[in-house]
Formats: sequence, structure tokens, C-alpha cells
Amino acid sequence: MKKYEQLYNSIKNMILTNQLKAGQKVPSIRKTAQIYNLSVTTVQNAYFELCADGYIISKEKSGYFVTHIADKAENKQTKSKAKSAKYDLTGGIADSDVFDISLWQRYIKSALRQKERLLSYSQPKGEYDLRCAVSEYIREKRNVTASPDRIIIGAGVQPLLQMLCSLLDKTKSVSFPAKSFVQGIGIFKDYGFDVKIRNKDADIIYVSPSHMTRWGDVMPIKRRLELVEYSNKKGSLVIEDDYENEFLYNVRPTPSLYALGKDNVVYMGSFSAMLIPSIRISFMVLTNELKELFEKEEYRYCQTASKTEQIALCSYIRDGHINSQIRKTRRLYSAKTKKFFDLLKKAFPNNDLSISENTLQIIMKINNDISPDTFEKHSLKILTEKKDSGETVLIMSPAGVNQRDFDFIIDLIRQCLN
Amino acid sequence: MKKYEQLYNSIKNMILTNQLKAGQKVPSIRKTAQIYNLSVTTVQNAYFELCADGYIISKEKSGYFVTHIADKAENKQTKSKAKSAKYDLTGGIADSDVFDISLWQRYIKSALRQKERLLSYSQPKGEYDLRCAVSEYIREKRNVTASPDRIIIGAGVQPLLQMLCSLLDKTKSVSFPAKSFVQGIGIFKDYGFDVKIRNKDADIIYVSPSHMTRWGDVMPIKRRLELVEYSNKKGSLVIEDDYENEFLYNVRPTPSLYALGKDNVVYMGSFSAMLIPSIRISFMVLTNELKELFEKEEYRYCQTASKTEQIALCSYIRDGHINSQIRKTRRLYSAKTKKFFDLLKKAFPNNDLSISENTLQIIMKINNDISPDTFEKHSLKILTEKKDSGETVLIMSPAGVNQRDFDFIIDLIRQCLN
Repeated sequence: MKKYEQLYNSIKNMILTNQLKAGQKVPSIRKTAQIYNLSVTTVQNAYFELCADGYIISKEKSGYFVTHIADKAENKQTKSKAKSAKYDLTGGIADSDVFDISLWQRYIKSALRQKERLLSYSQPKGEYDLRCAVSEYIREKRNVTASPDRIIIGAGVQPLLQMLCSLLDKTKSVSFPAKSFVQGIGIFKDYGFDVKIRNKDADIIYVSPSHMTRWGDVMPIKRRLELVEYSNKKGSLVIEDDYENEFLYNVRPTPSLYALGKDNVVYMGSFSAMLIPSIRISFMVLTNELKELFEKEEYRYCQTASKTEQIALCSYIRDGHINSQIRKTRRLYSAKTKKFFDLLKKAFPNNDLSISENTLQIIMKINNDISPDTFEKHSLKILTEKKDSGETVLIMSPAGVNQRDFDFIIDLIRQCLN
Repeated sequence: MKKYEQLYNSIKNMILTNQLKAGQKVPSIRKTAQIYNLSVTTVQNAYFELCADGYIISKEKSGYFVTHIADKAENKQTKSKAKSAKYDLTGGIADSDVFDISLWQRYIKSALRQKERLLSYSQPKGEYDLRCAVSEYIREKRNVTASPDRIIIGAGVQPLLQMLCSLLDKTKSVSFPAKSFVQGIGIFKDYGFDVKIRNKDADIIYVSPSHMTRWGDVMPIKRRLELVEYSNKKGSLVIEDDYENEFLYNVRPTPSLYALGKDNVVYMGSFSAMLIPSIRISFMVLTNELKELFEKEEYRYCQTASKTEQIALCSYIRDGHINSQIRKTRRLYSAKTKKFFDLLKKAFPNNDLSISENTLQIIMKINNDISPDTFEKHSLKILTEKKDSGETVLIMSPAGVNQRDFDFIIDLIRQCLN
């Protein structure tokens, strides 16, 4: 541990144990440096971190003070910790080993040096050079050929879908593959669309071929071809959410619907799953018709993704880091899934267990009717689903939990099921 | 200029003048260091910047190459430069002197050090500590008292309005202060609301008291009180977009409608105007009723603002930099407006000229009927508006242009008006 971190921790502890009380003045940087025999820079760094984390606050010309927020934040944290589970197997968290954050820092730093560029808003479609990089990337990876003009960047799939909804005729019907697509269904319903489930005769067909259900089913190539042909004939629009396609490494690579379609497919993808969830950059490829519509009303739209992160991501992609990142993530996540699967198999030899095609989820059938509350009481967060057949299925994604905790987690699951 | 910047510029020029052609290999870092007698680190920094800006690309194990995108990006840039004006007086750009980007860099770097935190998605409402900081900030500045639970963060006002629309009953009517609120009106129309202009009997009343029109009118306190009382009695919801209130320094500070209302006001604000436009963080304070609704469907929403920037902004606010930033921006922008106004007055002694109440815009009445195209042909971007009285009004915001160019710009305006 670095010196400034040691100091950070000791002051933080003094605050949390009330040796330093809210509102109280903290010794000055110079004094603290003298007391602990540290350099002024070290103390500055520690104080800066304490400020950043909300434990102390600097008041102009009068020094540093312990915040009131410090207590509150800590209380809130413990409160929300008690509420939210310690071991999250729902897949929303990344493994801390997987993402090289210092590399990303370099790109962010470089982006922040482009001062002139940061003084203005991003274009409504997003930064032009990022759209060029995305265009090259999806052509190479998914055979999605689209000029940068047809690519729209957004802070997640949600704002992109909202933009798309505003471009479409709201009297149309939209089909979703399952009721579990709550976010997408919610957005289309909000805009007044007629939402249906698995209805191939809808005007708009939303599909996620690489992740059709919550348990990670992949759409077979035959069904992809059928869907494309049928929608072509019917003149319906397909929205292809290519969520998690990067992880389909053990399945034969399947073509994108976009590549099979005839300018009637909107293609959507995201970089969050490949990088870390906190970087919210997604993209959408519009059909030519929708692109024209968008440009006519471009003044109505604002870009939601951070400009700094867009600039950084562009260079990150161009330098080839996305590919190595995907390889690394795939390898690690799939190894973790396999290991967790083997341990589960040993612990529950009589249960029906399988790994999803995208290798990210483990599906376990159980006879008990279990509620998410039971898991939460045991510090676990696990998705459950009642299948039509009446069975309950647990969907577990061990990517975000530490391998050292696997045995302990399995023990907790056992306690829940007994 | 630093050494690496010199090298960056010389290589960039070689690329732009086609001495180095697209696809061609660039000398290796070591070789370039030898040729120019520079350190390897210096060359590395220059190459890194060239990569970041898309001029060269590194290919694994084979070195650096001039990109094809370099031309395209350059072409695109010149193309869009030809299309978009050189002198933008519409107010969408910040002055490069106003924002201390190296200070912001420090906060971003510190945020990126919180690795564990960056591994997960932000809460749908946004980061808790930022909401605490915003809560304190608006209480102090605008007398808006709201717990962090009622504050929602978003990447701009647009995604926040979309969220709000999804919470409201879409059969209701909404009133906007003027037709010029194109973005807001577009969003409400998309969701199926009945949009009206200046109709106090609508169910939802959208107002922007500090910026009521495109020429920066401020809503007088008397009308604020009337509006609050009337909407209270009628049970209508007020959406208070407190856009640019920070710049109202020469007007008597006016109370927020939120502070005057009775839990029937949704308060919205943004940090983009205070910082730089590329940092897209806005916030919205929900009424208690809407907050309950939001929490019931929280799983449907994703946070759009960058988590890194949220963490950075939180510390930035807590350390008091927002206040000094606002003071600095106000001072500079208002001085620039005044100077530009004086020069205009001298150049056009017979025209009716005034400075808007928020001191950001200059309004100039003209007799000619001029189209934006005329300005664009003269490298200018100026908002015009035909008033009901038949006069044409130019709305000019000189904040984003360089003071050195003021005389030249005024000469261009003269050419346009002749």
C-alpha cells in the first residue's frame, strides 16, 4: 500500500469511528506532513482522495473539515449493502481482473488533452471519428456494412431505442421475443406502440439473436434466415439487438440478421459488456430510410454519451484493444462459468444443470418454489424464472464474483434450497 | 510548444500534405527518436496523440501506419467546416479560457482510481453521492429543498424529459412558453401528449423562468407567483427548467418556482452550461408522487450519464469549484457581451440594440428580412427570429468566439445587412 493510501485509511477510520467528528477541522496539510513525517505531496494526495470520497471537504481559505455527508454516505452504504446482496450472480457486474483500467486512463487523459474539441457539444449522431471506427469494427466482426452517417451513438441502448421510437410510426405493432425484455417493452409501450410477444406478423420485430431469453438461448441460423425472409416479404422492420454476441465463441459464428436483410434491419450493439459497465456507449445502425428521417429532424436530438469517453473509445478501438479485451473477457468468464458449473454439479448431483450457449449463464432446474427474498436473506442475488412447464429455473452468472468465494456461495445456495 | 507537440505537428503536416500517404508505414518509434534526436518517450507521446486523433494506427507487431480515415476525417472536417460557420454566435460553444481543464482532469483521474466502483452500472437515479452534492447545491443556490432520493441524474435534459414523460399520464395537455422549445415540444409530442403554446389551463406547464424566450427574457417575480398560485389551485404540474439561472447576476435574484410551489413542481437544471458543453450531466427533482412512481418501476430505467464523470463532478462540487467556475464564467461572458455590444453600437448607431437580462445575448432589431443562409455564406452562425410585430431580430451570443475576432465579425455582419 502506498504511503498516501495508508494516511487515507487512517484518517478515514478516525472519521468512521468518530474520533474526528462531523464539522470538525482536520489538521492542515503542512501540519499533518510534520506529524506523520510525510511529504506535503503525499498528504495532499490523501486529502484529495478523502475529498473525492466525501469524507472531508475543503473550505476556501479555512482548511479541511469532516463532512456531514461522510456519516450519511456510510449509513446509506451499509443500509443499501444490507438490502442488496453481497454475491451478485445476475451478471450486471464485471470482474475486476478483466479490464485494464490504467490503459483506459491513458486514453481518457489523451482525450482530455483535446481541449478545443471538448468546448462544444457532440454532434447529435455522436463523434464522427468514433462512428468511423465503429463502422470498421462491425464490418469486420459482424459483416454489418454501414457508412458512419448511418451510425448513431448513445449512452446505452435505452436512449437509442427512445430515439428510434420517435422516428417510427407509433400506430404500428411491435413484437418482443419474451416478456422478460422489460426495458424495451416499457419504452415501446410508453410511446403508444401496440406491443405483442413472439408475433411474427407484427410491423416491427425486436430480436436479440445472441441472447433470446434470460437463459441465454441463441437463435439458430435456420430461424434467422426464416425471419429475414419473412420480414423482407412482409415489409416489416427488424430491430436486431446484438447483445452479447461477442461471447458466442463456442457456438459456430452466426451471421447477423443485418447482413442477411435488405435494408430493413436496424442493428444495435453496446460496448459496455466488453469494457466495464460504467462506460455507457452503445450504437445503432439505421436503415437508409430512417437515417433520412433522422437527419431531417437532427436539431431535435442531443447526443447522450460522454464526449470524452467517445474520443477515448475511438482511439481504443483503432489501436486494436477491443479485440484483445474481448478475447480476455471471454476466456476469463467462460473459465469461471465452467469452474462454478463443476462445483455446482458436485454439490447438486441430482439437479438438471447446464451452461447456456453463450457460456455466461448456468441454468439449474429445481423442484422447490423459491422466491428471490430467500436468496437475498442469504446475501445472494440470483435470477429465477418459472418455466411454462411449471419448473423453476435458476439463472446464475458467476462472472462478477470472486472465484475464492465459489465454495461459500454454493454453500449458501444449498442453505436456500433446503 | 512541447517537443512531442512539435513532432506531432510535423508528422501531421506530412500526412495532410500527402508526403506520408494513406496505408504507408511510419518509421518506428526508435528510428524516429534517432532521426530527430529525441527521447523514446517523446516520440511515444507524439505517436499516441497521432493515433488518438486518427492520423496513424498501430497494427499489432507490425508498427504504425497512416490511416485512410485521416483523409476522410480531414475531408469531413473541411466539408462540415464549409457547411457550418466559422463564427458561431448561437451560444452553443464555451470560451476556451473559461474552464480549467487540467483541474477537471485531476478529478477524472481520481474518479478512475475508484476501480471497484467503475465495475458496476450506475444506479438508475445516478450516483448517490453526486445526488447528495446536488441536493446541497440547489438548496443553497436556489432554495430548492429535496432529499437525494428525489433527485435523478441524466445525460442532459433530453433523457430526463423522456423519463418524466414515461411517468406521466399521456392523455394530458402540456403548455410550452414558445414554439422555439423544439426539443421539449418534440419529446412530449412523441409520447402522445397534447401540446399547447402559452396555455395556463394545460395540465402540465413547462416553463424556463430564467430563459423564457430565445432572446433571454426572465420571468418577473409577479408572474412567478401568479403561475405557482394558479397551478396550485388547479392541481396542474409545473416543469421548471432552470436553464441559465446561474447567469442572472445583474437581475435581482429571483426565487425558483419550486421554492414557491407545493410539491407540484418538477425542477430541472444542468451543469453543462457552467462547465463545458461536452460534460453532459443534468438533474431533475421529482415531486414526491412522481418519485414513488419512479421507484416502483426503477428496474425499467438505466442511468445515461457517465459514471466516471458523475464521480468526478461530485468531488468537484464538494470542493467548491462550481461556485468559482460560475463566477469566472459570468464575469468573462458578461464582459465579452458588453464589449461586443459597444462595438456593435458604434457600427450600427441607428439600430435598436439591447443586452438580454441574463447578459448572455445581444438583441438587434433590423429592417431587412434576412435569412440564416446569408450569414452562413459569410461564415457566421446567428439566430434570427421574426417577431409578431413583423420586425426581424438578431440574437447574438459572443461567449464562444474569440475577442480578437470581434471587429472582423462586425464587419461580416455589416456585409450581410447591406
